[in-house]
Amino acid sequence: MEELILFIQSIIDLDSEETYSIQKLFKPKSLKKGDFFLAEGQVSKHIGFLVKGVMRYYINHDGEDKTYEFAQENEFIGNYESFLPKAPSVKNIQALEDSEIFQISYEDLQLFYRSVRQGERFGRIVIEAVFIKTLKGLSSLYTGTPELRYEEFIKKHPDLQQRISQYHIASYVGVKPQSLSRIRKRIFNQK
Amino acid sequence: MEELILFIQSIIDLDSEETYSIQKLFKPKSLKKGDFFLAEGQVSKHIGFLVKGVMRYYINHDGEDKTYEFAQENEFIGNYESFLPKAPSVKNIQALEDSEIFQISYEDLQLFYRSVRQGERFGRIVIEAVFIKTLKGLSSLYTGTPELRYEEFIKKHPDLQQRISQYHIASYVGVKPQSLSRIRKRIFNQK
Repeated sequence: MEELILFIQSIIDLDSEETYSIQKLFKPKSLKKGDFFLAEGQVSKHIGFLVKGVMRYYINHDGEDKTYEFAQENEFIGNYESFLPKAPSVKNIQALEDSEIFQISYEDLQLFYRSVRQGERFGRIVIEAVFIKTLKGLSSLYTGTPELRYEEFIKKHPDLQQRISQYHIASYVGVKPQSLSRIRKRIFNQK
Repeated sequence: MEELILFIQSIIDLDSEETYSIQKLFKPKSLKKGDFFLAEGQVSKHIGFLVKGVMRYYINHDGEDKTYEFAQENEFIGNYESFLPKAPSVKNIQALEDSEIFQISYEDLQLFYRSVRQGERFGRIVIEAVFIKTLKGLSSLYTGTPELRYEEFIKKHPDLQQRISQYHIASYVGVKPQSLSRIRKRIFNQK
């Protein structure tokens, strides 16, 4: 839980009482590789802080997976579009490795906002960052070329190339796995 | 300015000192029909509260306007993707009528967060609502059929049909203006 407290303290001040209450509001959760933190059709009940592991976010479009985001250690994960209005999710969040998460429920998050002095500030700043990341991810998904998306992937997640499968990288880039090496070659030849 | 104060008070409590300071932080701004609140390439410097008028949000895709959202009275307008990281906007926000706005700068918004007791809470709740609205608008833009988008438009903005041009409705629905009546007929025949 130390990582989560340090992360929160990098944004707001916490006294020891607040630290203690945060440790009770967030509950540990383990996911096996392939498990879902949130699956299409479910109502999202938690926001998670990823301590260990990798998640991919994807949408199912006519039977085809479109991966639009990855998350890794020390990031918040969740789908506010489902979590806030308590609506069924159209998005999937899946563990690509065995993962460790601390998660908070909707009700406990309201308690966090009320009981931590700068809790609202923390919530505002986190949601701003998630908003920007999500919008960038989605607009790149719909308008970016495969070459651009491959370059973005390398830049944003330099270590993930070794951790996740070619299949999932290709799903993010928007091509078949067998086309990835062609794209790598094209980018390499331009440099 | 009364509308803005009432809107804020519908979400948080304000005392008279806070009300007074908010009246100084937000500045009036008028736009003529066709003017831009934010144009592609500009860095967004303000978030606005629309008191009178209609805005459309659009992206220019290879020379074609794609309208993905409208805003009308008593809504906040702006592009957080440009405003927060101080990055050039890829989106346009244009007045479709002569409009009256109260706008706040980035620096004054930080002052608002610090000086209004529940300012952070207000900011968190507004950005949550904008986040959800933007995501819904964009995902419908990229995946919704014209029929679905026309129905959404009618539902979300029942009064805008009379206020804005067929051209802008068609741009939102994603068809040429001359195809709108065909879509209306198809929806009508299904009912």
